Amino acid sequence: MDTTTEKPPQHRVVVIGGGFGGLYTAKALRRAPVEVTLIDKRNFHLFQPLLYQVATGTLSPADISSPLRSILSRSKNTSVLMEEVADIDPDRQIVKLREQELPYDTLIVATGVSHHYFGNEHWKDHAPGLKTVEDALEMRRRIFMAFEAAEKETDPEKRKAWLTFVVVGGGPTGVELAGAIAELAYNTLKEDFRSIDTTETRILLLEGLDRILPPYSPDLSAKAEETLTARGVTVQTKTKVTNIADQVVTIERESGVEQIPSQTILWAAGVKASAMGEVLAKKAGASLDRSGRVIVEPDLSLPNHPNIFVIGDLAHFAHQSDKPLPGVAPVAMQQGEYVAKLIQKRFQDKTLPAFSYFEVGSLAVIGQNAAVVDLGFIRFSGIIAWFVWVVAHIYYLIEFDSKLIVMIQWGWNYFTRHRGARLITHREAVRQPPEEKMQVTTEEKMPVEV
Amino acid sequence: MDTTTEKPPQHRVVVIGGGFGGLYTAKALRRAPVEVTLIDKRNFHLFQPLLYQVATGTLSPADISSPLRSILSRSKNTSVLMEEVADIDPDRQIVKLREQELPYDTLIVATGVSHHYFGNEHWKDHAPGLKTVEDALEMRRRIFMAFEAAEKETDPEKRKAWLTFVVVGGGPTGVELAGAIAELAYNTLKEDFRSIDTTETRILLLEGLDRILPPYSPDLSAKAEETLTARGVTVQTKTKVTNIADQVVTIERESGVEQIPSQTILWAAGVKASAMGEVLAKKAGASLDRSGRVIVEPDLSLPNHPNIFVIGDLAHFAHQSDKPLPGVAPVAMQQGEYVAKLIQKRFQDKTLPAFSYFEVGSLAVIGQNAAVVDLGFIRFSGIIAWFVWVVAHIYYLIEFDSKLIVMIQWGWNYFTRHRGARLITHREAVRQPPEEKMQVTTEEKMPVEV
Repeated sequence: MDTTTEKPPQHRVVVIGGGFGGLYTAKALRRAPVEVTLIDKRNFHLFQPLLYQVATGTLSPADISSPLRSILSRSKNTSVLMEEVADIDPDRQIVKLREQELPYDTLIVATGVSHHYFGNEHWKDHAPGLKTVEDALEMRRRIFMAFEAAEKETDPEKRKAWLTFVVVGGGPTGVELAGAIAELAYNTLKEDFRSIDTTETRILLLEGLDRILPPYSPDLSAKAEETLTARGVTVQTKTKVTNIADQVVTIERESGVEQIPSQTILWAAGVKASAMGEVLAKKAGASLDRSGRVIVEPDLSLPNHPNIFVIGDLAHFAHQSDKPLPGVAPVAMQQGEYVAKLIQKRFQDKTLPAFSYFEVGSLAVIGQNAAVVDLGFIRFSGIIAWFVWVVAHIYYLIEFDSKLIVMIQWGWNYFTRHRGARLITHREAVRQPPEEKMQVTTEEKMPVEV
Repeated sequence: MDTTTEKPPQHRVVVIGGGFGGLYTAKALRRAPVEVTLIDKRNFHLFQPLLYQVATGTLSPADISSPLRSILSRSKNTSVLMEEVADIDPDRQIVKLREQELPYDTLIVATGVSHHYFGNEHWKDHAPGLKTVEDALEMRRRIFMAFEAAEKETDPEKRKAWLTFVVVGGGPTGVELAGAIAELAYNTLKEDFRSIDTTETRILLLEGLDRILPPYSPDLSAKAEETLTARGVTVQTKTKVTNIADQVVTIERESGVEQIPSQTILWAAGVKASAMGEVLAKKAGASLDRSGRVIVEPDLSLPNHPNIFVIGDLAHFAHQSDKPLPGVAPVAMQQGEYVAKLIQKRFQDKTLPAFSYFEVGSLAVIGQNAAVVDLGFIRFSGIIAWFVWVVAHIYYLIEFDSKLIVMIQWGWNYFTRHRGARLITHREAVRQPPEEKMQVTTEEKMPVEV
């Protein structure tokens, strides 16, 4: 297809995925002479960086989600389709949905990643990850259920297992989760129980490399570990997880192999590409990296398919440095805006220089008043870092009411140490002895993402 | 048991149920010389009057729920147990939980009601009710899914069925639901779709008696019907539902029998007592009314069991007028406080006059700026009624952060016509063709409440 010919309103842009990448593409095209269709399996955009706060009872899913139709409702050239993409045909230039086919002139694939259990998919039932709203609600259920179960448990060994939380993965997600659970156990829930003392809770953060927050500079990693430890988290680096079974984690360290009895094991360790990566490999000749991510050209398109772009977490972009760009929100946002601009440039028979990511910085929060910030030219931690983290996250929330609600919830949490969303929903513990729990979770298992 | 002997801190009060009745009993006993255990299957108190707002995407579950431990954490004589009561033994004075037995000196049963399908339990899968958080989320899913499905539907008859909503039951819940869906269809979602025109939505409110809001005065019923109709709801009184099948409701009116094709049928028509009613009948000789509610003495106790009380929706109290008290929140609250006071009076060898409900009034909301209020000596409707409704509901929300969040959400909704929680969660439509949908819902079915 000759994309350099100007095509007034009939140029059809199909965007698959309503996360940061797809959404920012669509928004940036709202005044362009194109017809945009945004497809997503869900009807809302999810602000994933704050999912861990849904999992630990501070925020509700709706606080960090915005209906896609609502965000795009004023973009009159854009329609939203709640559908799942089964396949694509690059020769006919169509996207195959469940019951219809959608033709495109330009296709943008931004379907992100899902959990990766390094070949041990059966670990999924024992150690939920944190990518979707349902993931977060399941984590929340398990976390708060553990304290309830401990309260009723008379056997001291079993009670200890209920009060042992294992977070696998020392990246930002794992650090934030572990820090938040520590706040629950050592602060929020302290006065709420009568049989147990929640300050006896053990929270383990396991990381295979030699330090947590590996993408950050070593001094920030050290600071984060110091803060986490001071707040009650036991950080174990150079620790590999070799097995996860019902109620027990097996780890391997220099000192040998160890088994940790725990009722609540949370996965924050690995991601792999969504299934669209494979589809593009099979149908469009795309090359994939080891995680299944699609290797893209300097302008984010596929080799031999200048009208198919891959952006966001699904893309492997290694033209800026020897390491591919990380799967973080600002990368996806900037790539989305770049592609939108490129499409419009092409109408004028122009093009753009290669995509170049402008890294603002990296932020990770540890808990109240504590975060680490790496802006490249400057790195700092502590309460000012925490404040920067707060402001940045409020800024990036899409809808104004989300910003307001989240600020209220955070303000409330800060001043009262209460958390506003500590609900156990979608299965009461009393109907689930531990042996049954795994079966039920399997029924609830989220389908593999497209 | 001789309840007139004073028993210092060892007098054990067991309260089953953390709704308005049980919670207000526990709160009112916080300074009494008793040991209180509050048992609930859930870990939170739910403000049920606003559940319909969760179902229609304005509020999140956490906005109207408060963790029981949190509410009672400062009551040092009170512990909370997240458990389910299997049985009671009035002779040994114990409550049987799943794995333990709990002795009591005074027992208060406040387990409320659940949906009643008038013997047609199989209707439950086709027409969800609105008693729990999961109910509300399921309703929400179906409501928003209907618009998404209509957007994709090419067959006009099927599309019409997706855009037809049937609410069964013209009491306050049904009226509020129908009004809220009308606001969605005619206001909130108006600009969000490209293939369908949401203002073509048909919303039917079916009521078997000759007017909606039967407990209210006839002029308020007429006013409510007028307002609903002006806002797009088709009110059909003297209409009995004779069958609910997958995607079709069969009704019987004076004019004959009619079948209404609809993909979204919502049940607001009947309640029956929770299972504890039967347990009390079998084990404590209680008498039940036709709905399974427990007939109580003027002091809310059981005949022959002065230390067992039944309060709230589960109780049938007909000593004040010839009709039993309605199953509304203020009744449960006042009964809870009465029983708490009575327990304390008994310690001093005193008693109280019979329980007497002080009726503040009845409120039902129709939509933005429209409600009906009946305070007995005065009745009114319109925007002032709506304001009274808003204030009363904020007042009764238990926690301050709930009040604040709900006020923010309502303020946002009012000024922007946006609704903050329009998420479709826990099953994407794309994985559920209508034929499968019912099976999946059966798996998700909530267990019968104790």
